[in-house]
Amino acid sequence: MEARSASENSPGVPSAPQGRPRRGGYRRLPVQQRREQLIEVALELFAARPPEEVSLDDVAEAAGASRPLVYRYFAGGKQQLYEAALRSAADELTSRFSVPRKGSPTEQLAAVLDRYFDFVAEHDAGYGALLRGGSVVETARTSAIVDEVRRAALRRTLRHLGVRQAGPRLTMLVRSWISVVEGASLSWLDEGRQIPPAELRDWLVDQFVAMSAATAVHDPQTAQVLAGLLALEEPDGPAPALVERLRALLAAQPVVR
Amino acid sequence: MEARSASENSPGVPSAPQGRPRRGGYRRLPVQQRREQLIEVALELFAARPPEEVSLDDVAEAAGASRPLVYRYFAGGKQQLYEAALRSAADELTSRFSVPRKGSPTEQLAAVLDRYFDFVAEHDAGYGALLRGGSVVETARTSAIVDEVRRAALRRTLRHLGVRQAGPRLTMLVRSWISVVEGASLSWLDEGRQIPPAELRDWLVDQFVAMSAATAVHDPQTAQVLAGLLALEEPDGPAPALVERLRALLAAQPVVR
Repeated sequence: MEARSASENSPGVPSAPQGRPRRGGYRRLPVQQRREQLIEVALELFAARPPEEVSLDDVAEAAGASRPLVYRYFAGGKQQLYEAALRSAADELTSRFSVPRKGSPTEQLAAVLDRYFDFVAEHDAGYGALLRGGSVVETARTSAIVDEVRRAALRRTLRHLGVRQAGPRLTMLVRSWISVVEGASLSWLDEGRQIPPAELRDWLVDQFVAMSAATAVHDPQTAQVLAGLLALEEPDGPAPALVERLRALLAAQPVVR
Repeated sequence: MEARSASENSPGVPSAPQGRPRRGGYRRLPVQQRREQLIEVALELFAARPPEEVSLDDVAEAAGASRPLVYRYFAGGKQQLYEAALRSAADELTSRFSVPRKGSPTEQLAAVLDRYFDFVAEHDAGYGALLRGGSVVETARTSAIVDEVRRAALRRTLRHLGVRQAGPRLTMLVRSWISVVEGASLSWLDEGRQIPPAELRDWLVDQFVAMSAATAVHDPQTAQVLAGLLALEEPDGPAPALVERLRALLAAQPVVR
């Protein structure tokens, strides 16, 4: 909504001549650029510490700006800045859900998970605070942003599986697997990243196959989706390998009836 | 902390004679009983609507009490009342995690899940608001209460599995399965309870077995736990049945290498 050409001391009003020395020695930036810079700085701070431990002064200082200047851009203060930062992070995360064109279905899933875990690793404390809720800057609006990301993940995953109209069991399966991705990433952060990210990614792909298999034994739609997915796999890909290993594991269990 | 014998108009001070007519026609209750009643009424209201749509006046009205009286018990207002209600709900939920002595491991797990879903069904909107976060009465304290419940679920499940010291992979598996239980219950509420609760429970038990199997192929500790669990199962129980069905499903997939 702000004019891109305006200067920051009075957004919307034509800027004073560039290069003139400013009070306080702060660096002058064009409006849009400053706005983006403030969001970026805020994101970094919210990633490093829980949101309740980040003050507007911290943001101003890290941005090389004054507190009144931050307020000029975010009149709603920390809450508004947090929401803008969250929206920016949510957009970035959602953009990572786009599935590469190359590879088998599980290779594509693995590529998306790699990008997801890069994001988790970058945003660390901020990611945790976000998913866990309960931060003091958490509201119904921030919650809606997070829910939107989850819905986007559900839509993308179903589209990736070639599903147009998911029944309640397939929907529950995919939503639950998305919960596993969230839960595993939080657990990974909490436990000090003990498990290598590549192993975690492979584990999540395996979980997807195993959870689908356990659902497929009762739900025809999931059975069809799983069969379609396995048919597209490379013979030496992770899904056939898991199928083989599960076969061996199950064969080792005592046969019943 | 309050004396059980005190009356409510001045908690901590001996009560006026019982049975005397009161101003405003409100019913008089002993202090502890009134406190419990207010929490119970608040829980019902928070279960029926998102917490931000429940006012202290609503609580007072539903309890047959005045607003000042509610403030006398909960000087911190709605926030304090919400936390007390949440604490009470969390204690109730945690108490349902106790595993019955009878039955195979999966029968015991199913019994715990039945009690869990009774709780979800009773608390409905309140349960959703709680797990999703983002309610206006959500704080670091309420978040800590929810995290405590999750940690209790993790501890109980590991104890149930006979695990003393869980490695990072087994911990991640159990935490992830708990995320599945949460995600599935939210999905179940959101999708209008289309799936019968008994089917949902059986599905979650199956997911536990399948997720354990997929983890067991790479993690010796999980393999040991799963083998121990399956050894205790009844031949006609859900875990052997799933193992059989998975075998059949996997056998139907094209054999690789």
